[in-house]
Amino acid sequence: MKEHKIEIRVSYADTDQMDVVYYANYFVWFERGRIEYLRALGLSYKEMEKQNLILPVMEASCSYKAPAHFDDLVIVKTTIKELGRSSIGFIYEVVNKESGQLLAIGETRHPFINRDRKIVRIPEEIRKKLEVQ
Amino acid sequence: MKEHKIEIRVSYADTDQMDVVYYANYFVWFERGRIEYLRALGLSYKEMEKQNLILPVMEASCSYKAPAHFDDLVIVKTTIKELGRSSIGFIYEVVNKESGQLLAIGETRHPFINRDRKIVRIPEEIRKKLEVQ
Amino acid sequence: MKEHKIEIRVSYADTDQMDVVYYANYFVWFERGRIEYLRALGLSYKEMEKQNLILPVMEASCSYKAPAHFDDLVIVKTTIKELGRSSIGFIYEVVNKESGQLLAIGETRHPFINRDRKIVRIPEEIRKKLEVQ
Amino acid sequence: MKEHKIEIRVSYADTDQMDVVYYANYFVWFERGRIEYLRALGLSYKEMEKQNLILPVMEASCSYKAPAHFDDLVIVKTTIKELGRSSIGFIYEVVNKESGQLLAIGETRHPFINRDRKIVRIPEEIRKKLEVQ
Repeated sequence: MKEHKIEIRVSYADTDQMDVVYYANYFVWFERGRIEYLRALGLSYKEMEKQNLILPVMEASCSYKAPAHFDDLVIVKTTIKELGRSSIGFIYEVVNKESGQLLAIGETRHPFINRDRKIVRIPEEIRKKLEVQ
Repeated sequence: MKEHKIEIRVSYADTDQMDVVYYANYFVWFERGRIEYLRALGLSYKEMEKQNLILPVMEASCSYKAPAHFDDLVIVKTTIKELGRSSIGFIYEVVNKESGQLLAIGETRHPFINRDRKIVRIPEEIRKKLEVQ
Repeated sequence: MKEHKIEIRVSYADTDQMDVVYYANYFVWFERGRIEYLRALGLSYKEMEKQNLILPVMEASCSYKAPAHFDDLVIVKTTIKELGRSSIGFIYEVVNKESGQLLAIGETRHPFINRDRKIVRIPEEIRKKLEVQ
Repeated sequence: MKEHKIEIRVSYADTDQMDVVYYANYFVWFERGRIEYLRALGLSYKEMEKQNLILPVMEASCSYKAPAHFDDLVIVKTTIKELGRSSIGFIYEVVNKESGQLLAIGETRHPFINRDRKIVRIPEEIRKKLEVQ
């Protein structure tokens, strides 16, 4: 799967007094992007957790290009950047739906760990789905 | 204990594009108020959870009197409103530290439950501390 | 309009360490509910603000009936409770989409004010749309 | 000024269902760190905004080393990483106060802009204070 898109309506809660979306909230959108990306590949993160497979965030970054405003519709495009033996990296592009303007580009990197916080190899069944991209 | 006060500096994250603190964030302040109230009574909520005693929120309300702004110092005053056999109610007053102006009054009500989400009687040791007020 | 429904997917950001949605976040959902309710009536809150008409929150409350969990789909049903000369009240019901279980009931009340924070009468054009309900 | 420290008590609101602080919330802590860093240098960000000087976030990143938990006391250490003609970069270290363990390292970069969103040179008076470090 090349990329997966979700649509988000900017709420009042997302904004700050500079009249734009507060910078930390993009990372919440990234989370929604990657959860839906996984779902689109047939992978429920909730199920993965039940099977003792957790994907905490190891690295996160965002480059802000233009502000998002209250009531804007934004698109979050999620793609896999890299797939290691026991880690995965995602890239996110946030664009304004109406104008197509690029608002932000971000990345997150995640190890696969179990409940004991030990790094584990990505199970074959999951790897196959992730490689469909 | 009559009441317990905590001081909070309003951050950018707290504000919205109306240049005031977003209404839902007062409930986050209330949480901080009651956790510190309990600590001042010698009750660590973290310890209570370890002992299988949880205080979820059953009711929450807030009446907004005047806005709080970025960088304001606000005081959250917490008091116990009522103490039942297996429930507790708190009242919160938020005031601007500099002007003394009342910004908001809120309440929350909580049952005492265990991890199986069964309502439990307040243990005697905890009740004694709560009644010191 | 009797009521308006929106669907929300619970994200990780919404949850807390009790494995449920943190109580303050329901108020963020209520905001989304009322903004979409107004939009469904042909009223853009963004436009209203441009026309110098603001609806801050004066009162907010929520009664929590059952927890929402990560990845749940919840429905927020919004209705107008009361329409005054210069104020409006909304009611919100949050239900689990799959089970139909009621999770929470909330209310908010709002004065109509202008940028100078003076209370204003609801403009006739807006009142007509609100009364369609 | 070499670095400036603030102390934060982890609240329930900060956590997620993995029992740790949700990754986006570190960026809220970074904001608090840099606002207090500036204040310690005699620079009120609120005053700067009034003087038409705004510091939006252009780049933000965080590397997560170990989790923070509910009720932990964490220290956020803020330093200036670089000071350009019209931009500034901060570094943040988050450590557990009790154990001294490093939890996260982050960075943010900010242009100095005015209300018209034009990049402006850092005013001499402000630069002097920033260079005290």
